[in-house]
Amino acid sequence: MATLPSVSYSITVRLELDAGSTAVGGLTNAVERVGGMITALDVAAAGHERIRIDVTCAARDTEHAQAIVDALGAVEGVTVHKVSDRTFLMHLGGKIEMKSKVPLRNRDELSMAYTPGVARVSQAIAANKDDARRLTIKRNSVAVVTDGSAVLGLGNIGPEAAMPVMEGKAALFKRFADIDAWPIALDTQDVDEIVRTVQLIAPGFGGINLEDISAPRCFEVEARLRELLDIPVFHDDQHGTAIVVLAALRNALRVVGKKLDEVRIAMSGAGAAGTAILKLLMHAGARDVIVSDIHGAVHTGRGEDMDSNLRWIAENTNRAGYSGDLKGAVAGADVFIGVSAPNLLTGDDIAEMNDDAIIFALANPDPEVDPDVARLHAAVVATGRSDHPNQINNVLVFPGFFRGLLDAQSNHVTSDMMVAAAEALADVVTEDELGPNYIIPSVFHSDLSTHVATAVREVAQRGHKADRA
Amino acid sequence: MATLPSVSYSITVRLELDAGSTAVGGLTNAVERVGGMITALDVAAAGHERIRIDVTCAARDTEHAQAIVDALGAVEGVTVHKVSDRTFLMHLGGKIEMKSKVPLRNRDELSMAYTPGVARVSQAIAANKDDARRLTIKRNSVAVVTDGSAVLGLGNIGPEAAMPVMEGKAALFKRFADIDAWPIALDTQDVDEIVRTVQLIAPGFGGINLEDISAPRCFEVEARLRELLDIPVFHDDQHGTAIVVLAALRNALRVVGKKLDEVRIAMSGAGAAGTAILKLLMHAGARDVIVSDIHGAVHTGRGEDMDSNLRWIAENTNRAGYSGDLKGAVAGADVFIGVSAPNLLTGDDIAEMNDDAIIFALANPDPEVDPDVARLHAAVVATGRSDHPNQINNVLVFPGFFRGLLDAQSNHVTSDMMVAAAEALADVVTEDELGPNYIIPSVFHSDLSTHVATAVREVAQRGHKADRA
Repeated sequence: MATLPSVSYSITVRLELDAGSTAVGGLTNAVERVGGMITALDVAAAGHERIRIDVTCAARDTEHAQAIVDALGAVEGVTVHKVSDRTFLMHLGGKIEMKSKVPLRNRDELSMAYTPGVARVSQAIAANKDDARRLTIKRNSVAVVTDGSAVLGLGNIGPEAAMPVMEGKAALFKRFADIDAWPIALDTQDVDEIVRTVQLIAPGFGGINLEDISAPRCFEVEARLRELLDIPVFHDDQHGTAIVVLAALRNALRVVGKKLDEVRIAMSGAGAAGTAILKLLMHAGARDVIVSDIHGAVHTGRGEDMDSNLRWIAENTNRAGYSGDLKGAVAGADVFIGVSAPNLLTGDDIAEMNDDAIIFALANPDPEVDPDVARLHAAVVATGRSDHPNQINNVLVFPGFFRGLLDAQSNHVTSDMMVAAAEALADVVTEDELGPNYIIPSVFHSDLSTHVATAVREVAQRGHKADRA
Repeated sequence: MATLPSVSYSITVRLELDAGSTAVGGLTNAVERVGGMITALDVAAAGHERIRIDVTCAARDTEHAQAIVDALGAVEGVTVHKVSDRTFLMHLGGKIEMKSKVPLRNRDELSMAYTPGVARVSQAIAANKDDARRLTIKRNSVAVVTDGSAVLGLGNIGPEAAMPVMEGKAALFKRFADIDAWPIALDTQDVDEIVRTVQLIAPGFGGINLEDISAPRCFEVEARLRELLDIPVFHDDQHGTAIVVLAALRNALRVVGKKLDEVRIAMSGAGAAGTAILKLLMHAGARDVIVSDIHGAVHTGRGEDMDSNLRWIAENTNRAGYSGDLKGAVAGADVFIGVSAPNLLTGDDIAEMNDDAIIFALANPDPEVDPDVARLHAAVVATGRSDHPNQINNVLVFPGFFRGLLDAQSNHVTSDMMVAAAEALADVVTEDELGPNYIIPSVFHSDLSTHVATAVREVAQRGHKADRA
């Protein structure tokens, strides 16, 4: 699968060349010859003798960006000056800030927002702690908490290096659901310490979004925090993914005319996301699932190498006790869902599936099967990538999900809320729009988060006493 | 000392009265008769028969506000509708928010601010942790940390009730020094837990502002965090106050023509603020100080009731071993500095001081001595109140102080920085402006925080290896 140039690897190169030169035309050729893509070309300064041009182009990766710079420098009469990396420029000084919502122009305003006026507000909350949700940022604030142990596909890079991702997450919370999120990157990977720290900082937040914490620790962190806190706790890597998968699968099944409780599902991956997907699909009615990990199908007879999570999977799936490998599990299945590793399956494997197969190959950046190849044998193909149709992207759900939780002042999260969110998300795609290449809306679809938020809020307000997810 | 109506107790009362009524004129009279102060009168709606008027007035306190409402309701023909408290209105939903500094209008921008582009930024920080100060909010972020144990004059009201104060503090950080502060209210008052929690959340912050943590725990929390962290830690209740006091005292001494290393100073209060003031004054050259607390003067012969803080004071002040009460210590002193309790001294006590006495009576809201009375016997009088000249207010220093620390990427705080900040703050008052009623500038003085920041940054950049404050 060829990688296309991406704006996320975008550079701006400042060039200087003779004013009379005909080299400008050569610049575009030079970039295109090495596979780059020019997205902007600005004359920054023009003199009688020399002109300066800023060329902005998308590259595939860092090496490719360098190749583009080299190609530009090799054009006759061109001198390369500063090369700026647009992504790094965007990150200088961080991506988020704190803003005051109240004016502080004079002493009167100061005396209401701070001392002495603020004292009365504090006293009101001291008298009735619930007023914190009315009179402080707790009404609209979410802590984005990570320990930096499983950041994107980068692994255990630590809390400082995780911050750009957490800041991005906070920015997305604001952009899509007007939520005030603040990143908290923890300098520990000890479960007890993570749990205790989050518990201790909770008074100022209306919700906790756990992020990029590696399995199996994330299960325990989440479960314990849900017991301890009176605000909702949501591990986005698990549940955000699970909700979007359920929504997409619901629509994919509509496309092929099959039912969730009748299809055979082969899953690859039993980590944080895989487990959450499995549990949510089962809560929504899926009955025939086989989960495989690196050792093959998870089944009760697999012996003692299984942690409590794998044991739960073995005991609740794979009724027939299939003990073969992933390919064997995929053969004859209606649905494949991968949250595991690149290139585990070939077109031939997909061809062995039932008619009108549904493929969700979500490993990033390289899916479990090449989506272009899979599409030759399957009815619906989805990936985690933005350069293919049907992108399974958590951004579709977590902003609206928390919006609904905060609006309902919910103190917990249930599986019913997650199913409701998935249904709302799926229903954003109308009957007219629905098709093999459009089972899930774009993240920029208007009102998306409002639909999800409304669904979550309604379930929360019904006061459902469903089992905690 | 009569309390005047304050905007911080400001209400808006919606009234309805007959259109033909002459009652409007009576409204002002009614409010003034009970000592209220009308600050605005808006006709909200006028019909043929009835008109609606919003009357906004300042009151002294909650009871007084009610008296004003009652007085308005008693005016012939007037019906009182909704009564709104402007301070509470200002606090609805909290006072601060998170904002994204980057646009997220389309997929390209998303792919730079979040995945996949953000991965390269995270990798750069993983390779060089120092880049966090360049590529994340760490460059400009401060955690405002409290345990809710000593909030304003309200005492131990807990973390939720402390939040409005912490949000206000964050808003001040932004307003006066463009710093992105976020409040962290901790659900523990255990020193070990506070220290460990702050240590664990530190990776995302460039500084820690401790706030409203009661003595003596605040001393240990600060000292241990300074040992553990590579970002500056500053307990504003201690050092912010100390710096402003030193600045104000420096200018007060200029007014009376005395020198810091020659004057006798009587202090009242040996808590967090008192101890910090004492230490900073001594670092700046003060040599003759007697500190009194509720048991009288602190001296080495006082016995075993003293904690380590009091022992330090006994061993380093009061050379003559004075063992009497506060009034005796004040007699013959040049300077009185109180950070203790209301109404400890009378005009007669002040009259016993040396000529050209300087009085800093900082207990809030009621000072150690009535400032109007003190002014009869002293050359310079300062308080913590905004309705008297010479307000000693931490807001004068903490924003600029942290601005300097962040700009220098300082990893610690020294006494020399504090002295430099005090000198910069004092020097904002020009020779022409200086006088008994103007020893310290207004918090709204332009460029105030820039002056303080520059002074702090210069000391930090000199890499002074002074003792840690």
